[in-house]
Amino acid sequence: MQEYQIRTDLALEATESVRKNASEDIRGINIEEYDVLDGVHVTKVEIASKNASKSLRKPMGKYFTLEAPELQEYDDDFHAQISKEIALLLKSILPDNDEEDSVLVVGLGNRDVTADALGPFTVDNLYITRHIIKEYGKDAYHNSKIKQISALIPGVMAKTGMETVEIIKGVISETKPDVIIIIDALAARSVKRLNRTVQITDTGIHPGSGVGNYRQALTDENLGVPVIAIGIPMVVDAGTIVCDALEKVSKEYAGAKESLNFIRNNSNLQLNNMYVTTKNIDETTKRLSFTLSEAINMALEI
Amino acid sequence: MQEYQIRTDLALEATESVRKNASEDIRGINIEEYDVLDGVHVTKVEIASKNASKSLRKPMGKYFTLEAPELQEYDDDFHAQISKEIALLLKSILPDNDEEDSVLVVGLGNRDVTADALGPFTVDNLYITRHIIKEYGKDAYHNSKIKQISALIPGVMAKTGMETVEIIKGVISETKPDVIIIIDALAARSVKRLNRTVQITDTGIHPGSGVGNYRQALTDENLGVPVIAIGIPMVVDAGTIVCDALEKVSKEYAGAKESLNFIRNNSNLQLNNMYVTTKNIDETTKRLSFTLSEAINMALEI
Amino acid sequence: MQEYQIRTDLALEATESVRKNASEDIRGINIEEYDVLDGVHVTKVEIASKNASKSLRKPMGKYFTLEAPELQEYDDDFHAQISKEIALLLKSILPDNDEEDSVLVVGLGNRDVTADALGPFTVDNLYITRHIIKEYGKDAYHNSKIKQISALIPGVMAKTGMETVEIIKGVISETKPDVIIIIDALAARSVKRLNRTVQITDTGIHPGSGVGNYRQALTDENLGVPVIAIGIPMVVDAGTIVCDALEKVSKEYAGAKESLNFIRNNSNLQLNNMYVTTKNIDETTKRLSFTLSEAINMALEI
Amino acid sequence: MQEYQIRTDLALEATESVRKNASEDIRGINIEEYDVLDGVHVTKVEIASKNASKSLRKPMGKYFTLEAPELQEYDDDFHAQISKEIALLLKSILPDNDEEDSVLVVGLGNRDVTADALGPFTVDNLYITRHIIKEYGKDAYHNSKIKQISALIPGVMAKTGMETVEIIKGVISETKPDVIIIIDALAARSVKRLNRTVQITDTGIHPGSGVGNYRQALTDENLGVPVIAIGIPMVVDAGTIVCDALEKVSKEYAGAKESLNFIRNNSNLQLNNMYVTTKNIDETTKRLSFTLSEAINMALEI
Repeated sequence: MQEYQIRTDLALEATESVRKNASEDIRGINIEEYDVLDGVHVTKVEIASKNASKSLRKPMGKYFTLEAPELQEYDDDFHAQISKEIALLLKSILPDNDEEDSVLVVGLGNRDVTADALGPFTVDNLYITRHIIKEYGKDAYHNSKIKQISALIPGVMAKTGMETVEIIKGVISETKPDVIIIIDALAARSVKRLNRTVQITDTGIHPGSGVGNYRQALTDENLGVPVIAIGIPMVVDAGTIVCDALEKVSKEYAGAKESLNFIRNNSNLQLNNMYVTTKNIDETTKRLSFTLSEAINMALEI
Repeated sequence: MQEYQIRTDLALEATESVRKNASEDIRGINIEEYDVLDGVHVTKVEIASKNASKSLRKPMGKYFTLEAPELQEYDDDFHAQISKEIALLLKSILPDNDEEDSVLVVGLGNRDVTADALGPFTVDNLYITRHIIKEYGKDAYHNSKIKQISALIPGVMAKTGMETVEIIKGVISETKPDVIIIIDALAARSVKRLNRTVQITDTGIHPGSGVGNYRQALTDENLGVPVIAIGIPMVVDAGTIVCDALEKVSKEYAGAKESLNFIRNNSNLQLNNMYVTTKNIDETTKRLSFTLSEAINMALEI
Repeated sequence: MQEYQIRTDLALEATESVRKNASEDIRGINIEEYDVLDGVHVTKVEIASKNASKSLRKPMGKYFTLEAPELQEYDDDFHAQISKEIALLLKSILPDNDEEDSVLVVGLGNRDVTADALGPFTVDNLYITRHIIKEYGKDAYHNSKIKQISALIPGVMAKTGMETVEIIKGVISETKPDVIIIIDALAARSVKRLNRTVQITDTGIHPGSGVGNYRQALTDENLGVPVIAIGIPMVVDAGTIVCDALEKVSKEYAGAKESLNFIRNNSNLQLNNMYVTTKNIDETTKRLSFTLSEAINMALEI
Repeated sequence: MQEYQIRTDLALEATESVRKNASEDIRGINIEEYDVLDGVHVTKVEIASKNASKSLRKPMGKYFTLEAPELQEYDDDFHAQISKEIALLLKSILPDNDEEDSVLVVGLGNRDVTADALGPFTVDNLYITRHIIKEYGKDAYHNSKIKQISALIPGVMAKTGMETVEIIKGVISETKPDVIIIIDALAARSVKRLNRTVQITDTGIHPGSGVGNYRQALTDENLGVPVIAIGIPMVVDAGTIVCDALEKVSKEYAGAKESLNFIRNNSNLQLNNMYVTTKNIDETTKRLSFTLSEAINMALEI
């Protein structure tokens, strides 16, 4: 039983206890794990029942996760391989290819806040085709499988005065995409996930998730179109890191448990509005956004 | 009679012959001119008849122009004064205050192309209120006159795959603003206008105008809401500058006229996709966008 | 007695125990404190003896600190007032005005790493005069008190392949400034210092200090010219924040002490290369660098 | 005989008449031309006598030029091939490999002015080794041929208050490089050179050259170390483009000649401080700087 609420956007972290303890079999959770490259691990979690959804506090649906510690390194070849693996996962979670022909990619977040810029930066590098196909047809690309790709960077509410969902709904009503892919920077619970874990889900984006947070859901149900969300953890809440550290030692020392409770209830720590990032986050955001945009370009047959 | 088409987004340039020649009175054009500060000139042109519109190749409506050669200088106090004058012009062209309460400001152009970044940069500095008023009411600002201000940077078609008009229409249908203010970088005919002329018009934005160009009109008629457009010339087409120079000498030398015709029909000049800018355009775009955003903030009672 | 090493670039934090406990009078430390504005506190610490220097682990010299919690807010008028106060402190620590006439301002750090960009951004906004005075004399400014101001952004070793001290020494040998002012982003021990504390010292910059760290001292002794260093804490090491939290509770719970020791010796926390920042660090770095550059401009009679 | 002074930083343009007219053989000019790839042309000009230097208004030395119209296109593979060809030219003009072991690369220009940012952006992408080799020896790279590479972005005089030559001299005196490679954005005479011509010369940089201009020579003679300069034309002076167009028609129409003279002497054109660039200069500067940095990395055995 969980005693307190930990903020994580990763289903992988939410399912950790389940995965660790094979005997603790929860009905309605299907987990498949395998390595795709040396040191690159894929986990496919499907939350298939309401009970499972409730106990994990995550909506029903598929969550694919790729973990690659070396994503932090600056190796172009490795990043290219990872793009390919992400593309495969993305293709397998996209609705059936024949039914959807136009894709709107949305980059959430604030390009002026490094930790929140993954979405806008990813969209900057996408290959956009919709306007060309609208004007000249698919012949322009000599590729009948090519999709109509459009992209949007809606901006954050503090700068637009509008809910993200209002902007996206409006653009959907005018341009009628068949599917939406949303990119967003995530918050993780553990520093070991930072900048090295990619999550792809068909459950969309939910209130309170992401670095910038959202007040209204960006989901199939709310937008009327299938929504795939891709995210990478870029920050950990500073409060979380303290609790995390204490939890680790609480197995060894009784006093840590008390400390933990004290800290959780102690606003004097002034850790609100603080977060933990890697020192090279500016460079990392650029690299990871490029890796994601290449993956999307590949998945959409460009 | 004009022999060839000159590209200008400025009504001021289009009406130059009319204004110069007082005797050449065209019906349906009302012109009012005055100085607001030392060296700062305001021209209010109203094109009030279809004939006038046709002969000037500009839509019917109001065009307010503020000319300030010193806008190129880096004088904060002067820029603050100009913001105030622009605010006054903007207020006088906005629909009656009591009728409109919510304003959507749209920054056209591409933030990654310096000459086309005026719109996005202006929106970056706006004071946004809609989301606050929606949640807490106007009491949050202790100002009953304050408007609901929202803002959008739609991006350019090459990067979105969507017509700008599609994105704006969609956002209007969801957020129902009472009036739209659009900011855009303009192309002028003469280098002497660059970075020092501000045009405010209630005629919106028309296909082919702006540095980035647009294929569909952003007008009251097309969007269903009053549209005010604010623009500053940031470039002159390189071809125009050659023709402009030749025209100047053509009054003196017969040969220049022939040269002019030759050049206009000569693709070997390779001046397509070239433009003329001031050397300090990067700095200038930042300053002018700030001057505009301050003007808009003032006009909307912030 | 301190049991473990805490990283802080602030003399204010190093002297905290001394200041709290008036009875614990250490010879060779002179402390003067006063408020300059509502909520703005100035502390002048002088470490005047070798013993004091040793016990505080800070070089002998003057450390002026201005604390202003509201520096985090976006109030232009308040920032302008703070610039003025910083200018006064800077003037009082600069060598006697009549002796020095040329000042080299150096912006340390990496402009591509937000948390380390304070120095370069500050230099971007300085008023530079040396080249004008060299060519036209001080008459160009109608101000006989004006100094010859030059500025340098040396870059970080990973990008230059050179020690910062090599670059600065070289430039000094060619341009012979009378005094050097160095701007750098600092690391603090406590989140409550972040973005709201300005330290001005005549002791220069020492190895291991700053967000980017330096391997060789940038001091009067090493450079042959008086060196004034101005810094603002922009990050806290992630490890520090955990220790800090535990220390707080250790007064209440015995177990916390053990936890603290465990954590300090536990590399599994993976907190290396992680730091804690405020969420709005991108915006904050821009504002604070402007506040500093205005202060320097004022102090140097611009 | 040249009637008027045309500003060009390209020896290729200065020697155009010589190259066109094979019969007009000037002693002391050696020209070699060949294609290296489809559509990629290399010209090696050596100005070997004082007379030749005087008649071409270019210093004695080697000027290698690579012309590739497709450099304007966004083809990564093509840019990679060009990097390789530039690397070969650079290697062949560098002083004998065994003698020089440490290289200082200098990126001239202003990173905040797009047309002048080629130098700083190129340096941003270099592989820097000096600090590693100083600390760990060449074994760190398992490559005995690797050079000690350092890099400097001196900034422009308006922002530093120092002559570029002062900063470079100072850094040379401290770090003793064996050779200097300087990168700079050039001005061309003809728009057809823009963004597609790379010049490599062992004559350094001379007063008045480059987009930002320099007041003092950056040459072997002045700096005491061999200086290789690499440049790409990023702008054409706006006045030049008008003269260029008129010159073209002057062969056809007598009047154009008169016009040309008139324009040259006519300050009313207000073309000072104006330049002509391609519309996509922001993107182009990024791409070309990357192509150059890759070339330098290759040439220096990285």
